[in-house]
Amino acid sequence: MKEADGGPIITLTTDFGLQDHYVGVLKGVILGINPRAQLVDISHNVTSFSITEAAFSVAAAYPYFPRGTIHVVIVDPGVGSSRRPVAAHIKDQYFVAPDNGALSLVLEAEPQAEVVEAADRRYFLSEVGHTFHGRDVFAPLAAWLSRGIKLEDLGSHLLDPVKLKFPVPEFLPDGNLAGQIIHIDKFGNLISNIPAPILQEALNKSGKSNYQIYLGGRSITRIVEYYAQGKEGEPCVLFGSTGRLEIAANKAGADKILGIGLGTKFIVNFI
Amino acid sequence: MKEADGGPIITLTTDFGLQDHYVGVLKGVILGINPRAQLVDISHNVTSFSITEAAFSVAAAYPYFPRGTIHVVIVDPGVGSSRRPVAAHIKDQYFVAPDNGALSLVLEAEPQAEVVEAADRRYFLSEVGHTFHGRDVFAPLAAWLSRGIKLEDLGSHLLDPVKLKFPVPEFLPDGNLAGQIIHIDKFGNLISNIPAPILQEALNKSGKSNYQIYLGGRSITRIVEYYAQGKEGEPCVLFGSTGRLEIAANKAGADKILGIGLGTKFIVNFI
Amino acid sequence: MKEADGGPIITLTTDFGLQDHYVGVLKGVILGINPRAQLVDISHNVTSFSITEAAFSVAAAYPYFPRGTIHVVIVDPGVGSSRRPVAAHIKDQYFVAPDNGALSLVLEAEPQAEVVEAADRRYFLSEVGHTFHGRDVFAPLAAWLSRGIKLEDLGSHLLDPVKLKFPVPEFLPDGNLAGQIIHIDKFGNLISNIPAPILQEALNKSGKSNYQIYLGGRSITRIVEYYAQGKEGEPCVLFGSTGRLEIAANKAGADKILGIGLGTKFIVNFI
Repeated sequence: MKEADGGPIITLTTDFGLQDHYVGVLKGVILGINPRAQLVDISHNVTSFSITEAAFSVAAAYPYFPRGTIHVVIVDPGVGSSRRPVAAHIKDQYFVAPDNGALSLVLEAEPQAEVVEAADRRYFLSEVGHTFHGRDVFAPLAAWLSRGIKLEDLGSHLLDPVKLKFPVPEFLPDGNLAGQIIHIDKFGNLISNIPAPILQEALNKSGKSNYQIYLGGRSITRIVEYYAQGKEGEPCVLFGSTGRLEIAANKAGADKILGIGLGTKFIVNFI
Repeated sequence: MKEADGGPIITLTTDFGLQDHYVGVLKGVILGINPRAQLVDISHNVTSFSITEAAFSVAAAYPYFPRGTIHVVIVDPGVGSSRRPVAAHIKDQYFVAPDNGALSLVLEAEPQAEVVEAADRRYFLSEVGHTFHGRDVFAPLAAWLSRGIKLEDLGSHLLDPVKLKFPVPEFLPDGNLAGQIIHIDKFGNLISNIPAPILQEALNKSGKSNYQIYLGGRSITRIVEYYAQGKEGEPCVLFGSTGRLEIAANKAGADKILGIGLGTKFIVNFI
Repeated sequence: MKEADGGPIITLTTDFGLQDHYVGVLKGVILGINPRAQLVDISHNVTSFSITEAAFSVAAAYPYFPRGTIHVVIVDPGVGSSRRPVAAHIKDQYFVAPDNGALSLVLEAEPQAEVVEAADRRYFLSEVGHTFHGRDVFAPLAAWLSRGIKLEDLGSHLLDPVKLKFPVPEFLPDGNLAGQIIHIDKFGNLISNIPAPILQEALNKSGKSNYQIYLGGRSITRIVEYYAQGKEGEPCVLFGSTGRLEIAANKAGADKILGIGLGTKFIVNFI
């Protein structure tokens, strides 16, 4: 890396929280190996042990980072067991994580990913414990990658990285579309698994011109382009910043208004 | 910017929270445009949709940043609507925000501010959506400013940026002063809208030598210089770090002890 | 510092929270004095006024930082009073804090520490208030140290820095060991004050081969190496990432399962 680049970027997505010293330790380890690394937090408030939430966050964030960025994803309830550490090269970016599905959505979006089992202990801390591989394994791996170590140097190719099944939208026999809430954000926006092109395809097939949402025993008919077009405190439907169908509310939390939790299923009814 | 400068500083003040990928995305976008930017978080835990809280935070923080710093302030319930993006040059620092009043307190403190409507889409991301202008508009604007683009290049001068009315202290007919709690901090300190010189002026006019506070049906008489001079767990009054009158409690939260919320009015009674 | 170093590292451990502008202000002050400083947050969510929690966090984190790192620790209920600011040089790293015990665990671990009373106001902000010495005193001190000012230049040697007594494990007359929960982390892991070598020593003395834990009226017998070896949702015992005995639970919070709080005492019973 040239000086003018500002140093290689390493992002962190973990469930370590911001209360303890854990995230600070990751950063100390990385800067000890590569003092020029630029550290960016994606989130450390991933729900404890939620691999799917970490998978969602890193998949939503990485397209906005420059080439060469290294993303470290650590939600690791299996730390110390035989689960493998992996490193991946996907579309000119790099990923380091336990092989537990944390990279599922990234790998799904980019089938030409190159994945290795990062087994070479030269790129770990010299002492590796049983309970904090973020510190002992994943932070060092990322730091060495940022210093120019090649992916292939970390270990041999892995053909079967763990991939979790995320719920996909279903085309129903009656022509409607079934979706699921896969993320609820800080504002209470209910983010679904239905990307805009899938909804458009189903709408075209249906021969109808509009749609409403059946969710939690309620029908939501207000389709808008941006939040402020909704009535204050009432649910509306739009395509959010990840390109997915989202149930929201202007200046309020749709999760609270509707009493809806993660995983709730709903119907897109074409009318 | 010269290398020895460590790179231009860009601060972020938002209501995006630290749970989702949103703040990480802002940083990825900025570093993609200017890899040398140094990113500093002021706060991402601004109460959702609270433009006034963001206005308070950035106004309290910016005087402590070096010249050339660029402050991005994003609390943007009107995202996607016709509200304008603005950029401002104030006392050798820069500000980027939606034109919704988020810069009110900064503009009030510095009437010679130069403000433009940042309308030139060359300095946005190539695709601009309807729901996340932090990513598509404000982060890119800040990054381009940090690369030396001039304020005038972003758009034409704006003479009427939105300014919210913040409550001002009132001199009462009986010679007393009426104030309001405008911020409650993490420690439960109740920060008012009364700056030290205003209180001094009112005290001088009153011909009295001391004062007490009437707040929430209670009178608070213990005037101190620092928290530890208060009795543990009992309310006291002092001038806090923003130079404003503050009701606090030694090693305890004055908000809880007094059961007081944001916006509560009180009287400074000269005695 | 040479350019290739990426700039001197300054870490921050405070109870300022992430809601207000306070942490941003610390960073602005530091970057105003040394634009090349690299800022790393250890934690800002230390429990308000808890000097012992800050002492724990910085002691757990600093061994993972490279030489030359400067650690700022600010939990400062005595701000504005006569308590002294201190700076210390310990094992090629630096520490800046109020002299209230925040460095107790670091000083205990490293008896050859060099400690000064940082009294030279040339290295403070020009105006020093009574309520925010993080901004006016500690951030500037750290920034000046990072620019190469020597520890001795900050003030004269201090032989009696405040050291808080942390609970130590007790060897009981019956051969058992008594410990205490000194930290509960984000996952609900109960971290004790018993380091592995002390337990090993007591086990050897006892002539026994195994142990169980008596905690909160319950005996915990499942001794594991890593979390996933425990049964889901049931308490187990292991040595955690700080090398101390820890009561945990696989994919669950041991604190909630056991209803245990900070400071709880327990017995290690050799069997």
